[in-house]
Amino acid sequence: MATVAQSESGARAPTISDTKSLKRQATLDSTHKNNATAIVYCEANFGGIDGKTANGLVRHSEKYKILSIIDSEKAGLDSGVVLDGVANGIPVYSDLQSALAQSTVPPEYFIYGCAPASGRLSLNERGVLLQAIDLGMSIVSGLHEYLSDDVEFIAASQRKNVTLTDVRKSRPKSEMHTFSGQIERVTCPRIAVLGTDCAIGKRTTATVLTRALNDYGLKAVMIGTGQTGLIQGAKYGVALDAVPSQFCAGELEATIVRAFDVEKPDVIIVEGQGALSHPAYSTTSFILRGSKPDGVILQHAPARKHRCDFAQMAMPDPAVEIHLIETFSDTKVIGLTINHENMLQHEINDACDYYQKQLRIPVTDALVHLPTYLVDMFLAAFPNLCIESSVEVH
Amino acid sequence: MATVAQSESGARAPTISDTKSLKRQATLDSTHKNNATAIVYCEANFGGIDGKTANGLVRHSEKYKILSIIDSEKAGLDSGVVLDGVANGIPVYSDLQSALAQSTVPPEYFIYGCAPASGRLSLNERGVLLQAIDLGMSIVSGLHEYLSDDVEFIAASQRKNVTLTDVRKSRPKSEMHTFSGQIERVTCPRIAVLGTDCAIGKRTTATVLTRALNDYGLKAVMIGTGQTGLIQGAKYGVALDAVPSQFCAGELEATIVRAFDVEKPDVIIVEGQGALSHPAYSTTSFILRGSKPDGVILQHAPARKHRCDFAQMAMPDPAVEIHLIETFSDTKVIGLTINHENMLQHEINDACDYYQKQLRIPVTDALVHLPTYLVDMFLAAFPNLCIESSVEVH
Repeated sequence: MATVAQSESGARAPTISDTKSLKRQATLDSTHKNNATAIVYCEANFGGIDGKTANGLVRHSEKYKILSIIDSEKAGLDSGVVLDGVANGIPVYSDLQSALAQSTVPPEYFIYGCAPASGRLSLNERGVLLQAIDLGMSIVSGLHEYLSDDVEFIAASQRKNVTLTDVRKSRPKSEMHTFSGQIERVTCPRIAVLGTDCAIGKRTTATVLTRALNDYGLKAVMIGTGQTGLIQGAKYGVALDAVPSQFCAGELEATIVRAFDVEKPDVIIVEGQGALSHPAYSTTSFILRGSKPDGVILQHAPARKHRCDFAQMAMPDPAVEIHLIETFSDTKVIGLTINHENMLQHEINDACDYYQKQLRIPVTDALVHLPTYLVDMFLAAFPNLCIESSVEVH
Repeated sequence: MATVAQSESGARAPTISDTKSLKRQATLDSTHKNNATAIVYCEANFGGIDGKTANGLVRHSEKYKILSIIDSEKAGLDSGVVLDGVANGIPVYSDLQSALAQSTVPPEYFIYGCAPASGRLSLNERGVLLQAIDLGMSIVSGLHEYLSDDVEFIAASQRKNVTLTDVRKSRPKSEMHTFSGQIERVTCPRIAVLGTDCAIGKRTTATVLTRALNDYGLKAVMIGTGQTGLIQGAKYGVALDAVPSQFCAGELEATIVRAFDVEKPDVIIVEGQGALSHPAYSTTSFILRGSKPDGVILQHAPARKHRCDFAQMAMPDPAVEIHLIETFSDTKVIGLTINHENMLQHEINDACDYYQKQLRIPVTDALVHLPTYLVDMFLAAFPNLCIESSVEVH
């Protein structure tokens, strides 16, 4: 029985039946704009929910060429097979020594690729990072605990002349913006990709949508709002969960306004965070306020039983989440996208049909179905952006 | 024509017709638990929206004995008259020199009592604070810019052996909590006092309600969520707008759980921030998630034309705000409270009648009407907390 790709879920190595998706999938990690080499640490979490930074980097990175992944539980596997059922040539090793022994080029960066709910480093992980520094690698971290503020890391990095990059570190408060209403002068449509839970594929869908719109011929710019997007190399973004709440809406607004002024895009895609209904992570409230989106795409995992990190809390019904979003913000949910974790191919299709009938909006799976479906979803809501003779790249 | 008290609004000196309110009002600033003396700086803002920290301190302070206010625009007036139409013996002076010249006791603290939207100090204000340090006073500040991180302030305070207190400074991230669900074991009712705008009297109503419930015989504990409440001396609180968004719900939850464990109260009252509908300040989203309130009291200013800081944005209708709150959170708005700024006495009464009919919930004005109305509002929603032979203190 064929199962389909799993997105940020368990360790099964499924096969995918949709060959068009395979073709696109295989190109996802081939967009290195520069060649800084990196090993990504994701012990015990690769392919899982708390490994979302590593999972994202394997699928797409503009900044780094990913050499390998470290996760002793999946050592020996191909990371693409673990994630999406398709080999990508990026191996998983059990530890740093094995990764270095097998590496044909020296890694410049050691990226901490886990995203624990606490945002903090375990004692054991501190040791691994210090070891990487000792081996001459610069460190990239999306943790809340800043390595560049840590005396031991500062000393080690100076000794080895390597850098410490804390992706989540915000600018000084004296340079932060409060919301000003400047967003009103951004005249192009803004689409927020929100979700019904954390780690559900919002960033992945936003990335696929942005690329698909550009392929179609519309200039689309993506605004990252989490540490993974920033590590992947998002040109515009702010790690909102590290920003004091007073400045969240304003910092996002300022980032969008800057992207609009510099890029003059046709569309802006804003990555969501957590879920508006989430008990712990409702930063999306500031994303809706700061971006004032003209449309929202909602990402949902039909087979997810409970919220990640909260085993006792059931997942919300997409219809309820949509009602909440449209009550909270003067916007419209223009489509639903499916995260197919733990689903069979026919279940994905059934889910698309079911939600399309229930919600009366377009429904697709950004990883399994053609990206053009996402473009169609967008154009159905913004028909005035239809291009008559578009450049099709599929 | 008699006008009524203005709460955190313009400079008129109104008279109040409700003598019971006057009596209570006059006792509001007489609850100093200790005698640390303080001058409050509020240049050009006393009585106004951006002077809310000073306004709050004049009305109620558990930590400090307020000697005087500095605001050259209201110099010569009594601060109680400016705020509520009733003299309180705390004068307003034009500058620090005049305040010191008239002071019979030496002030120990200089409190920066403005609350600018930016949360930051102007150059001129830096000079005044440094002068106060030079004169031997310790500084208390609720700014986002921490004086205790500022080389010039550190040096000055060390030279004069005085302290710098940054009320908004959060604990290190390594000690911060994410939301855990522990709030479920808080078995007493939690009431959040939310509002339709910033600086609309949420903290004042929460303070009056907490006192009224205690007077009635129920042990009520208030949880502060802003810098003013913390400066006033709230025993339990966290300045949420300075907390990174990832930790907002969790830090509030942890504060409430601690208050519940230590105080074993009958009721917990949680101060709201901004407004759930506010374009810039929707931190209330985390207040609803972190406190999971059993009931909400909504504060509204019927005569306010537009949101403070946003002249182009109309105030929300309370019915719409209530719908939003009840959609966002599994809770019930149990009453509306009126901020009577720019309203005549009969207009307050008319507004109470109007909203009571429209919304079908109790409506009162925490400053003009008897505090027992607030108790009745609470008991109507939580009749099982009714006390048969209560200790009435009015």
